[in-house]
Amino acid sequence: MTDFAATRARFLLPGNLIYLDGNSLGPLPRGAAERLDGTVCHEWGELLIRAWNRAGWMELPGRVAARIAGLIGAEPDHVTVGDTLSVKVFQALSAALSLRPERRVVLSDTGNFPSDLYVAQGLIDALGQGHELRLAPPERIETHINEDIAVLLLTQVDYRTGRLHDMAALTARAHAAGALVIWDLAHSAGALPVDLAGAGADFAAGCTYKYLNGGPGAPAFVYVAPRHMRHARPVLQGWLGHAEPFAFEPEYRPAPGIDRLRVGTPPVLQLAALDAALDVWEGVDMQALRTRSIELSELFIALVEARCPMLTLASPRDPARRGAQVGFAFEEGHAAMQALIDRGVIGDFRAPDLMRFAFTPLYLDEDDIRKAAEIIADVMINRLWDAPEYRVRETVT
Amino acid sequence: MTDFAATRARFLLPGNLIYLDGNSLGPLPRGAAERLDGTVCHEWGELLIRAWNRAGWMELPGRVAARIAGLIGAEPDHVTVGDTLSVKVFQALSAALSLRPERRVVLSDTGNFPSDLYVAQGLIDALGQGHELRLAPPERIETHINEDIAVLLLTQVDYRTGRLHDMAALTARAHAAGALVIWDLAHSAGALPVDLAGAGADFAAGCTYKYLNGGPGAPAFVYVAPRHMRHARPVLQGWLGHAEPFAFEPEYRPAPGIDRLRVGTPPVLQLAALDAALDVWEGVDMQALRTRSIELSELFIALVEARCPMLTLASPRDPARRGAQVGFAFEEGHAAMQALIDRGVIGDFRAPDLMRFAFTPLYLDEDDIRKAAEIIADVMINRLWDAPEYRVRETVT
Repeated sequence: MTDFAATRARFLLPGNLIYLDGNSLGPLPRGAAERLDGTVCHEWGELLIRAWNRAGWMELPGRVAARIAGLIGAEPDHVTVGDTLSVKVFQALSAALSLRPERRVVLSDTGNFPSDLYVAQGLIDALGQGHELRLAPPERIETHINEDIAVLLLTQVDYRTGRLHDMAALTARAHAAGALVIWDLAHSAGALPVDLAGAGADFAAGCTYKYLNGGPGAPAFVYVAPRHMRHARPVLQGWLGHAEPFAFEPEYRPAPGIDRLRVGTPPVLQLAALDAALDVWEGVDMQALRTRSIELSELFIALVEARCPMLTLASPRDPARRGAQVGFAFEEGHAAMQALIDRGVIGDFRAPDLMRFAFTPLYLDEDDIRKAAEIIADVMINRLWDAPEYRVRETVT
Repeated sequence: MTDFAATRARFLLPGNLIYLDGNSLGPLPRGAAERLDGTVCHEWGELLIRAWNRAGWMELPGRVAARIAGLIGAEPDHVTVGDTLSVKVFQALSAALSLRPERRVVLSDTGNFPSDLYVAQGLIDALGQGHELRLAPPERIETHINEDIAVLLLTQVDYRTGRLHDMAALTARAHAAGALVIWDLAHSAGALPVDLAGAGADFAAGCTYKYLNGGPGAPAFVYVAPRHMRHARPVLQGWLGHAEPFAFEPEYRPAPGIDRLRVGTPPVLQLAALDAALDVWEGVDMQALRTRSIELSELFIALVEARCPMLTLASPRDPARRGAQVGFAFEEGHAAMQALIDRGVIGDFRAPDLMRFAFTPLYLDEDDIRKAAEIIADVMINRLWDAPEYRVRETVT
């Protein structure tokens, strides 16, 4: 039994706002500021270079990675952290392609986050071996899996609509066709139960600043299945992926395990904040989190649809086919979202017309949802978005 | 006239130690902790996602990059920050190779930091076009520059010996042979005057946690010369390198300028610390810094050599041919460095036998050097390193 009132108390949430944007940037966990201050003032300031050993900076990436592994159903020594999600997707894709040298197609879907597609195209162009990036509609991706496919590269939860792919079924289908699968968990890790090992995933990558609340620019993670580990060459061969980084050998020898996916010096300050942020998961059952997240999103949809006929649900109506976020389409969505933010309901906007809201039980309850729906109804019914100050466009990540 | 007593006051240095390891991790600048606390508690904690616009997080990478550009003689809009140095070398090298499609040799030297060599080899293997990574001794690199060479990839200051390459001369020599040059400035930026534009460098990359004091794991930077900008494809194509990241287009279109070398979401916490750290350069003349650094290192060498015949200078004796660091070879160097650290003289050790010391006038003066030399003499003459506690090896980065 997860106590969500207790998890809420683990965050420092500003008063007078309802934060439905945990899918972009998770809020500040209570211990993060203090931890970071200690890392800066005591470890960096006083231990200086000695902190790599004496404050455990060398072990920090492994420690953080093992904690993330536990949240995504990964074998503990098969996840590492560092770099950004795009870099980790690049590494996973290059390793996966080298494991299917006779095939030439990377299959993804049109709902994938564009950066994954850019990364794939950049790698394909660099390889110059005639690979093709093939895109299919998400709802028909299964029918495009065939024996041409080298790698299926999918984001499990669509960054706009929240549409959830069936990881186990698609992985099995890909394997039956002899393809490998890379799962981008950007909107999955910390949002819902993920079972990489159980699904037989080959590779996965994700970010930690969304549902894992690691802070702005927190590092990414990458997973390699045990059966691929010793064959997975990372392409980005950096010194901390070497079997013996401090031997300073002129020839690269990959570390025997997941450390080979490491590249350069780890971002210690970001990792310290992330490590503190992972404390909030203590005692949280992911299945209970999922149940509660669905309750909150179902309540939200019902309340919004009852009052706001001008908003069109852009997410799957079946909660089992959604991640932890819900999108509503509205032509003036950008202005409407700014009006909501000004009134303390923080969601975000994705072009061309999508208003996104995330349901994160660690720090949200039914009372928040009811209040948010009330404010949304006020903004929409009274056209409060139709004011001059909302005609300027800001970008939000 | 640079006031080095004033710059010293801009750092929070622990008492009772002399920090000669700024070539590994610069010390804590006075404003960094406060800045980071504000970024965490106010910006992340209270503004949440809105901080990307309202706290200037979107502009932070560009702002920091422009400040670094001013310290390395780069055109202001031709540097960007992010990722790690290895990733930035990867991008620079892949862009450079694509500009010399008819050539097949990457030339580097045996004194280069191994990660640069690993990165080059990984890229070459991935390209599969028969490129060769050729290594020559640093002192004879010039004689190996010929019309086979696509790219000359050099670290200006040798990470072990401190040997300084002549950037202008080698760049001119490479250009005369039709080759491009990438300068790794890991041990140059903030250590001595660098004039990328004046030398006609093609690409450069560097890190910010050493002489720029950006904190552990601070992001890297990369430079592209104006003449190459519109041809430089980054291979690592991420969403923040797109011409319009927030249009979420399925096709990658590189940003027109240096932003195309950006990849993923920037490490905001590290960038905030780095931005604060760059304040210490206010009013610092790089030529004055260089003069003072040489005075300190010359004094150090004279004092150490006078007292410690068992230490062998491993750096060029001519200060004009050294960066800001000095290495002494000693068979028991690892134990000796630990003994020094225990007595408050912080340098570091590089296998197999090198004791490294860096001379950073921003926070070191002659008094520090005299005290350090005294302690070194005590440790060496009295064999204080020959104690059981110094037989355990720690790794330091």
